[in-house]
Amino acid sequence: MIAKAQLAENGPVRGTMVIRPWGYAIWERLQGAIDERIKAAGARNAYFPLLIPEAFLRREAEHVEGFSPELAVVTHGGGKLLEEPAVVRPTSETIVNSSFARWISSYRDLPLLINQWANVVRWELRPRLFLRTSEFLWQEGHTAHASRGEAHAYALRILDDVYAEAMVEELAVPVFRGRKTEREKFAGAEISWSCEGVMRDGKALQMGTSHELRQNFARAFGIEFSDRDGRLRHVWQTSWGASTRLLGAMIMVHGDDHGLRLPPRLAPTQVVVLVARAGEGVLDAAKTLVGDLHRLGVRMELDDRLEISLGRRIVDHELRGVPLRIELGPRDLAARQAVLARRAQGSKETVALHDVGTLVPRMLDEEQQALLDQATALRDGLTRRANTLEDAQDAATAGFARIAWRACGRDGERQVGRAGVSVRCLLREDGQPVEDPEADGVDALLARAY
Amino acid sequence: MIAKAQLAENGPVRGTMVIRPWGYAIWERLQGAIDERIKAAGARNAYFPLLIPEAFLRREAEHVEGFSPELAVVTHGGGKLLEEPAVVRPTSETIVNSSFARWISSYRDLPLLINQWANVVRWELRPRLFLRTSEFLWQEGHTAHASRGEAHAYALRILDDVYAEAMVEELAVPVFRGRKTEREKFAGAEISWSCEGVMRDGKALQMGTSHELRQNFARAFGIEFSDRDGRLRHVWQTSWGASTRLLGAMIMVHGDDHGLRLPPRLAPTQVVVLVARAGEGVLDAAKTLVGDLHRLGVRMELDDRLEISLGRRIVDHELRGVPLRIELGPRDLAARQAVLARRAQGSKETVALHDVGTLVPRMLDEEQQALLDQATALRDGLTRRANTLEDAQDAATAGFARIAWRACGRDGERQVGRAGVSVRCLLREDGQPVEDPEADGVDALLARAY
Repeated sequence: MIAKAQLAENGPVRGTMVIRPWGYAIWERLQGAIDERIKAAGARNAYFPLLIPEAFLRREAEHVEGFSPELAVVTHGGGKLLEEPAVVRPTSETIVNSSFARWISSYRDLPLLINQWANVVRWELRPRLFLRTSEFLWQEGHTAHASRGEAHAYALRILDDVYAEAMVEELAVPVFRGRKTEREKFAGAEISWSCEGVMRDGKALQMGTSHELRQNFARAFGIEFSDRDGRLRHVWQTSWGASTRLLGAMIMVHGDDHGLRLPPRLAPTQVVVLVARAGEGVLDAAKTLVGDLHRLGVRMELDDRLEISLGRRIVDHELRGVPLRIELGPRDLAARQAVLARRAQGSKETVALHDVGTLVPRMLDEEQQALLDQATALRDGLTRRANTLEDAQDAATAGFARIAWRACGRDGERQVGRAGVSVRCLLREDGQPVEDPEADGVDALLARAY
Repeated sequence: MIAKAQLAENGPVRGTMVIRPWGYAIWERLQGAIDERIKAAGARNAYFPLLIPEAFLRREAEHVEGFSPELAVVTHGGGKLLEEPAVVRPTSETIVNSSFARWISSYRDLPLLINQWANVVRWELRPRLFLRTSEFLWQEGHTAHASRGEAHAYALRILDDVYAEAMVEELAVPVFRGRKTEREKFAGAEISWSCEGVMRDGKALQMGTSHELRQNFARAFGIEFSDRDGRLRHVWQTSWGASTRLLGAMIMVHGDDHGLRLPPRLAPTQVVVLVARAGEGVLDAAKTLVGDLHRLGVRMELDDRLEISLGRRIVDHELRGVPLRIELGPRDLAARQAVLARRAQGSKETVALHDVGTLVPRMLDEEQQALLDQATALRDGLTRRANTLEDAQDAATAGFARIAWRACGRDGERQVGRAGVSVRCLLREDGQPVEDPEADGVDALLARAY
């Protein structure tokens, strides 16, 4: 589907990806939607270097251990062997925090809320387009706060107001929000929070993560501030990221046998008008339709390629996932009507031409909602509650299993791991964030994962 | 100024750059303005891998010769020595064209107009923030056409409608548009066109280039299409780029003794309202002013940091280049007025509070125009016509010299080169593009260059 819909293809260096214009235009819209929410959460964009001195990575013990196997290393620059090799950033905690140490000196400098849109490189042994590529595009947020409580609240704010909201409202993909176990957390974090999506095949996809780094990097990089009483303290930090992997979720949740189905909010083209057959005035009428809807703010495309059969063109637009398709031929025009097909709902109807302007904006909203409803039903249908670890492991080989964390625990986590199942996250029955994994009412969510 | 205005700072790996939030916010606005024009010229964004197999670079002889001294090379990935080293892209002609060879087969696939926003790495021996950094951000366009004439027209369209227009209208920097000499053209191009800016110190800055690659890369990468008659032909190509260097131009053209002066169209904050001194209702009145202007679409900032002296805060906002400053204190409020200072024109006036809403949008336009007028006067004042090569070389050590290309020629170009002067571009007296460098009416523009 990725190839046929011209979303992306493999690059020549193993594991790299070329994002083609149709795929990139979807990414641009998603990027814009996430960026807007990040700015609303008070963070400002900046840019840090791609190349990081190798020694920086080693300053935080868990961090270097986690990332060492995935690093790409530049050993030569300008025709010479470098004195110190430079690592292509796998993530930017180290280089960002080396700047934070210079930028922060007083409580007045806090909170410092920074985001960066960038490419990162993590060498992948089993690459897969959009899901695991050696280079991917993402945003990574890095923040410093005066207190642990403030950092905690901000990490959760990003998880909820930026990630979960964008996933539901833009991608139309409902997610489980939860806390990572010790085994699954980010290398260098004290607590990792994540959004987990349920793919059509019952597997989980980690779609965005938000980490509480506590003072680990602050100590490693010497990021101190003098508080209101003049005492020197280390800052409390968070980092959080979401990537082109989100497009993988969109494909794996909404795709069907005919190809992609794009949420209208992200679709580069929301409506395609097809000149079905040649006939007097048909092309002009199609152009008028495109122009009228464009003026209403709808992203339009005209398909007048009469040299290609109507059937083949329909297949093509379905493949690309265009939400609405309007077919117009000489007979339709004579009857002042058009055929309108909805991609998400798979339905087709005949509508009066003069109604199209009022119908289309409403239908786009309905298509967006239909995708979310279908994805929610998919998630709920694939999620089962289990009482024993055996049941949970069984259920998790075909979908998601929810089991009391106490009935699983670290031993259970190791055990299901041998069957290819992992604890995606811990979450509470009451929907509140898991402050204490060992408390009452904490569930583990088990599944196979991409 | 770059450090004090918190625009950017050096990264830990030599020649790399950290773009701080204030600098990055200006870049985001410029990027948006350029992106809009690129899309209006019909190109679509895509993304190609950072890492390029070393062998790709070698396929076009001049290209590899030009870029070899500047390459950063990844030799290790995932803990292993790579079988084939990968180059960090210095520019993407080779990797883009390896995709084009797959994407193009028929005249129906043409023109193919692609743009990418990306980071590139060129190892710099004498790095300088924004002007020459080992890593920089840019856009690079890559297009394929069915005929030489069409490629030629498109390269010039980008030069005029995207680059020159954005430089004049957004950056408020007038440019010379011209053709590069054989000596100065891009490695792998047949013709290079450029926009050259005149910096305050009389030196030239190349601000954007558009290249006609002819069929050089098409032959190297086998990009062929069958034309309407079914004959197989190589495509004709262009590539074009503009980078974070443009921020260097903005600083060097508009900066003054007090710091940066931002063109209002690019300023992240267009107006700062300062609570000059504490007093009843002053903070509320300032907030109302900020809110009212914000609703008019003006980008506003409130400065109520009364713990810092007014003088120091004014110095700070001048440094950062905020176009308009409104000072409001208890006496002003009692008189229903405020002090309004214009950064570009360096003037200060007292205005009635109820006029601010109508005055500010007009003043922002005036500030934008004032910067362009000043930069144009600067350019004209620094440019002299010369009749002999000696005169031209003299003039070019303090500014720009314009001399008939016939009176300079390749020999003259080599000769002035020894004095640190180069031919920035060839341009015609009638303003038309230089189709034939040896024709009547072609001038050479000489200057020292960054």
